[in-house]
Amino acid sequence: MSLDAVLNRIDADLDAAVARLSALLEIPSISTDPAHKADCVRAADWLVAELQGLGFDAGTRPTPGHPMVVAHDGHTGPHLLFYAHYDVQPVDPLNLWHTPPFQPVVQDTPAGKVIRARGSSDDKGQLMTFVEACRAWKAVHGTLPARITLFFEGEEESGSPSLIPFMQANAAELTADIALICDTGLFDHDTPAITTMLRGMLGEEVTITGPAMDLHSGMYGGAAINPVRVLSRVIAALHDDTGRVTVPGFYDGVAELSNALRAQWDALGFDGAAFLAEVGLSVPAGEVGRSVLEMIWSRPTCEVNGIAGGYAGDGFKTVLPSKATAKISFRLVGSQDPAAIRTAFRAMVQAMVPADCTVTFGSHGGAPASVMATDNPAFEAARAALSAEWPKPAAFIGSGGSIPVAGYFKSVLGMDAMLIGFSKDDDLIHSPNEKYDLRSFHKGIRSWARILAALA
Amino acid sequence: MSLDAVLNRIDADLDAAVARLSALLEIPSISTDPAHKADCVRAADWLVAELQGLGFDAGTRPTPGHPMVVAHDGHTGPHLLFYAHYDVQPVDPLNLWHTPPFQPVVQDTPAGKVIRARGSSDDKGQLMTFVEACRAWKAVHGTLPARITLFFEGEEESGSPSLIPFMQANAAELTADIALICDTGLFDHDTPAITTMLRGMLGEEVTITGPAMDLHSGMYGGAAINPVRVLSRVIAALHDDTGRVTVPGFYDGVAELSNALRAQWDALGFDGAAFLAEVGLSVPAGEVGRSVLEMIWSRPTCEVNGIAGGYAGDGFKTVLPSKATAKISFRLVGSQDPAAIRTAFRAMVQAMVPADCTVTFGSHGGAPASVMATDNPAFEAARAALSAEWPKPAAFIGSGGSIPVAGYFKSVLGMDAMLIGFSKDDDLIHSPNEKYDLRSFHKGIRSWARILAALA
Repeated sequence: MSLDAVLNRIDADLDAAVARLSALLEIPSISTDPAHKADCVRAADWLVAELQGLGFDAGTRPTPGHPMVVAHDGHTGPHLLFYAHYDVQPVDPLNLWHTPPFQPVVQDTPAGKVIRARGSSDDKGQLMTFVEACRAWKAVHGTLPARITLFFEGEEESGSPSLIPFMQANAAELTADIALICDTGLFDHDTPAITTMLRGMLGEEVTITGPAMDLHSGMYGGAAINPVRVLSRVIAALHDDTGRVTVPGFYDGVAELSNALRAQWDALGFDGAAFLAEVGLSVPAGEVGRSVLEMIWSRPTCEVNGIAGGYAGDGFKTVLPSKATAKISFRLVGSQDPAAIRTAFRAMVQAMVPADCTVTFGSHGGAPASVMATDNPAFEAARAALSAEWPKPAAFIGSGGSIPVAGYFKSVLGMDAMLIGFSKDDDLIHSPNEKYDLRSFHKGIRSWARILAALA
Repeated sequence: MSLDAVLNRIDADLDAAVARLSALLEIPSISTDPAHKADCVRAADWLVAELQGLGFDAGTRPTPGHPMVVAHDGHTGPHLLFYAHYDVQPVDPLNLWHTPPFQPVVQDTPAGKVIRARGSSDDKGQLMTFVEACRAWKAVHGTLPARITLFFEGEEESGSPSLIPFMQANAAELTADIALICDTGLFDHDTPAITTMLRGMLGEEVTITGPAMDLHSGMYGGAAINPVRVLSRVIAALHDDTGRVTVPGFYDGVAELSNALRAQWDALGFDGAAFLAEVGLSVPAGEVGRSVLEMIWSRPTCEVNGIAGGYAGDGFKTVLPSKATAKISFRLVGSQDPAAIRTAFRAMVQAMVPADCTVTFGSHGGAPASVMATDNPAFEAARAALSAEWPKPAAFIGSGGSIPVAGYFKSVLGMDAMLIGFSKDDDLIHSPNEKYDLRSFHKGIRSWARILAALA
């Protein structure tokens, strides 16, 4: 079957594809916020309607949280499972958005046209690259070149609580020859990438309670313990002066890079200073002696994602707060064990809490790191297809972000997974003013069309 | 003029006095919140109308912030200035209130009747004790026993920015023989007190900025500095392991108690363990080797009154925040210099901020501690009057809270100030469910009637 005709069809249909993406982006499917539960259902229903229009056998599947979307089409060739997620991050601080986050706009920028909206890059734009590639194949050839299952999740930004049970309950339907995941980025503007190392993540919430109620800081200050002071000491103690995380046993399972992989990464010519300069920084904040690429790809971290306690509004309130809370996450690499680190972290915090304070912990999920089986021939086939589409050859790279689903495909369904995506470092994912390059969208669709041909 | 008749009149009029206090408590005069500016004006106007009804020459006086209330009456005897404030603290967290904060209710409790509302104890209930004492004197005798000026402020809970300029501009009108201030508490349920030592306060707001925008903690975590980590290190460093504040030069001007005053305090039989137990604590959090009474009355402190950064809502957001901010206050004693401590604090913080982070500071006021001139004979006269009303003799005590106006009466107007109040430690001032004992209100009114007789 002709690939060129499919690519031409993609080029001709681009404006319509952007319009379809805009319609999906208008749905505020923020999975972590209970107020947007109906919007998540709406996004899933929108996808099902689109896929049914293309001839897929598509439906939503209920979960205790937001629904899954599962769709099947194609009857010959290998069985490929494509995964992406239709939920998005919250949008606060809303006042920093220059355009409303759920009113997508196409804008001209010095680097080309972009579509700007929450979820444009993470992950609705990426999700639609594959759907549009399937549309073009069917429009040109009336059929797909492989047996394809689409699997879209609505809880990726809130820890994927339903994912493993759903995979387990539907293992026969979801198990394919290989999984394709589109939730990662290009290495740079011209270099496509297959991500073969993904950090895992452990999310914890720590609440320290001191006095039984908020107190007047004048009447009680000095005598009553301040939980913000306790929490600050805990956070300050999580890193030593060389930037290493101090949780006991934290580095168990953290391996050094192989010489081969280190050489490959060195050859990428990654500019750590420029990477930091793009976000206004100049000093790498990780472990002393490590490169920036190691800090974000192959070394584990500990971050405070949120902290709150006392009065943080306008003006000043002389309160000695009863409680202070922090959301803390760990990025994991190699074979670090999330459960063991959770236990060690909680014990370390507990030991730092004074006798008359109490600490409670909340769990926000945990998943180990993933290292892909790059000896599967599909990896080289896909690399060649990507290299044909983009100005520079595709590279095997690491990723600092956690995409636990990649590991679950292996551990639950026994499938290898291949992470291919087209987002860029300046896409502002999880931040105000998120965008997706139309070039990423267009060449992303074309890339999937090529990969389908290569794997078929 | 007969004091007994005045006291009898106060007893007979108590229900009506409570109704008047309720009307004032219904006005949500939260001075620190710009949304309540009109309510502050409303509270001032309500007071003026009340005082004009009693025959005072009363009016509101504009300031750049909330209005002052000034009223005069009486033509013989010494000139007494009475100060209180009509503004109140914010009410958050609102969900912890058992009754709406601005719908006052009288409730029976095991310790007697209370009136519950924001501002009931701090300071509208206390303000009205003096107004009601004046009402009774005029009802019985048709005139006041002394020349009285009432001076009510509406910015006490937001740092009193207009107070000094107003005192300076109206010095002739406001200068009296002595100032009476009703914004303090009983020593205990049966022991009235004249507060002769007050801590000062310095309020600072620290904002640390790292990355130029919120980042994805997976993509940037490890390489990009997290401002919450920096801020936590700053806060953790503000106290050493013995509970001392580490700001350089902080203890300059902090004197040890005289043996005489220490003996007087020891004689009070203050139960530090019970004081902490009331708020669910058991371990004094201040400097090692100091008594709880020293920690709250005569030792300086550093507290975090609020902290915020990143995502603190429901669920979890894997954000690496751009900014983190804390509101930090210092309680000052002796001759500690707020300006010098502000400078030293800011230099200390600045030195802890990494090269590519920035720190900005906001000022939330500063006032030195006050130590009263207890050799003024009015102090012994008032102490005797209080001792006649209450079960136990009145005591000279300290107070951990900052009431800068006491110092301003001395520094700006050259007047001694006498701090007499009837609040209790369990009044939950600045917290949800604030209350004022009706016994405090009733005996407070009677106490002022007696003090007016004694000073006249």
